[in-house]
Amino acid sequence: MKKTVLTGIKPTGQIHLGNYIGSIKPALALAEEKDYNPVYFVADYHGLTKIHDPLEMKQLSYGIAATWIALGLNPEKSIFYRQSDVPEIFELSWILSCFAAKGLMNRAHAYKDAVEKNKAAGKDIDDGVNMGLFTYSVLMSADILLFNTDLVPVGKDQLQHVEIARDLAEAFNKNYGETFKLPEAIIEKESSILLGLDGRKMSKSYNNTIPLFEEPKKLRKLINKIKTDSLPPETPKNPDESIIFSIYKEFADQSEVKAMREQYEKGISWGDAKHALFELMNTRLEEPREKYKELMASPHKLDEILAYGAEKARAKASGFLKEIKGKAGF
Amino acid sequence: MKKTVLTGIKPTGQIHLGNYIGSIKPALALAEEKDYNPVYFVADYHGLTKIHDPLEMKQLSYGIAATWIALGLNPEKSIFYRQSDVPEIFELSWILSCFAAKGLMNRAHAYKDAVEKNKAAGKDIDDGVNMGLFTYSVLMSADILLFNTDLVPVGKDQLQHVEIARDLAEAFNKNYGETFKLPEAIIEKESSILLGLDGRKMSKSYNNTIPLFEEPKKLRKLINKIKTDSLPPETPKNPDESIIFSIYKEFADQSEVKAMREQYEKGISWGDAKHALFELMNTRLEEPREKYKELMASPHKLDEILAYGAEKARAKASGFLKEIKGKAGF
Repeated sequence: MKKTVLTGIKPTGQIHLGNYIGSIKPALALAEEKDYNPVYFVADYHGLTKIHDPLEMKQLSYGIAATWIALGLNPEKSIFYRQSDVPEIFELSWILSCFAAKGLMNRAHAYKDAVEKNKAAGKDIDDGVNMGLFTYSVLMSADILLFNTDLVPVGKDQLQHVEIARDLAEAFNKNYGETFKLPEAIIEKESSILLGLDGRKMSKSYNNTIPLFEEPKKLRKLINKIKTDSLPPETPKNPDESIIFSIYKEFADQSEVKAMREQYEKGISWGDAKHALFELMNTRLEEPREKYKELMASPHKLDEILAYGAEKARAKASGFLKEIKGKAGF
Repeated sequence: MKKTVLTGIKPTGQIHLGNYIGSIKPALALAEEKDYNPVYFVADYHGLTKIHDPLEMKQLSYGIAATWIALGLNPEKSIFYRQSDVPEIFELSWILSCFAAKGLMNRAHAYKDAVEKNKAAGKDIDDGVNMGLFTYSVLMSADILLFNTDLVPVGKDQLQHVEIARDLAEAFNKNYGETFKLPEAIIEKESSILLGLDGRKMSKSYNNTIPLFEEPKKLRKLINKIKTDSLPPETPKNPDESIIFSIYKEFADQSEVKAMREQYEKGISWGDAKHALFELMNTRLEEPREKYKELMASPHKLDEILAYGAEKARAKASGFLKEIKGKAGF
């Protein structure tokens, strides 16, 4: 029996190297394995908690879809859809909300972060918090549970969402009998957390990212900005402590990694290391970047792909939702 | 241009006289007027915040549907549906939640009541509060706004829900341009708040109700329990201070009301007043009661009526939701 693995990316900004290395690349690798049934989606409605500009929403959503396809996700061998095309998710979200203790949401990280920020700024604790943000993890539970998901790859900071999904599944099952499968988290390896230009975790909120499909000229510039120490060129360097190397090894094959490791250990100038990184990335990303640009220029192709995926998603979801509703007396 | 008037009844228990006189009777009168476009629904998913027993949910939902039809609601001249048959409502509810300040929900009556009860009992303020209850008024806003509702008949204590719907409509309109009509509340007359057997407002939570379609024997018993003062039979009585009379006039025609008023003023024993009330109610309710029993015995007829209504509701809702989504960049 194949295991269903589900992951979604929400529109927050341009897809960057951190997204790619932390989420997309491992998810694409899973999708290639025959034991997994990949259910990957554009979590556009999650983005609505923050993005209220329709053009930005549209562009970012297309951007996520184009990225997956450009990097080789096969819509035939996966269920690949836009969340907003699957209304069953929102109906299930309401059902689950009736089994979600408010106390549980009070303890959700995203909400607690917002509260802390408000406190620090001397504001009302709920200042700027909308109900979308507050109920976020109920919707995420619906995303997960509707597809009988076995596995959800998450960063450590997202583990709570999977735990909440399990809690809600258990509460429903306990009341109405076995219905939902309990999902399990696959915790992303620490090593797959990529550091950004400034040495902090690469994240849009730190403004330290390298967009995945940046044009060559800009890409070179950004790579040149990566923070390094002041060791002189000829001094041996520890590749495992270098941000440059940590990116390099994600694009290189084994022999390239080995060769570069040796160069670090022999001594390489940061300038040369950056140049090598640029050359490698540019080579490996050239084709997907072209494909990405092509797709972004003809969104109707993306619409077609997404419509096809939505059809497959709804074919799975609608029967299951009917079963769920039946158990609850609807 | 006809005005859309929307009302929903959620499953909480058997439909009683308070529901009938406060909500159903005036709504049926509006439905008969040619200037109104009635959109009436069984708010079954609202009931899920409390009812987790599937059989109870099913029975109570059918009960509400059967009541409306038995009392003469014409499904051809109205849009009459079950909330759980219209998925568009739940998708809109998510959209609106991204424009609903959490602070607004903190101040919602139903939630504040729960908090007060918990405080009084020395419990955590959110004890037993689920997210369905907490986000209740966002779903209600979606119920209202999805149908371009002009008017929502509500009790005074429900006025806040219409205000929240207006707030969310305004927030969305302000951000994306004119989209939602701002609904207005029709406040039910004070006089239509019916007192129960014990003299408090008739409400399931006080356990002082008279079920609308109670069998004659039990109906007589319940009427006999209505609280009265100890005035002797021959003493003149003020009909406007009598619970018995307040019910009587809801079922009587003008000349019957006038005649009974005179009897009160001349002096009538409470026993006779109760007997007259029973006779009148029993006569007027005999036919709808039979019809109700018939419908409850053949739920497939109700399913047919509700499916027809859902089709009409979704025909209106789906186009509008598409427009709403388009404006938000989906």
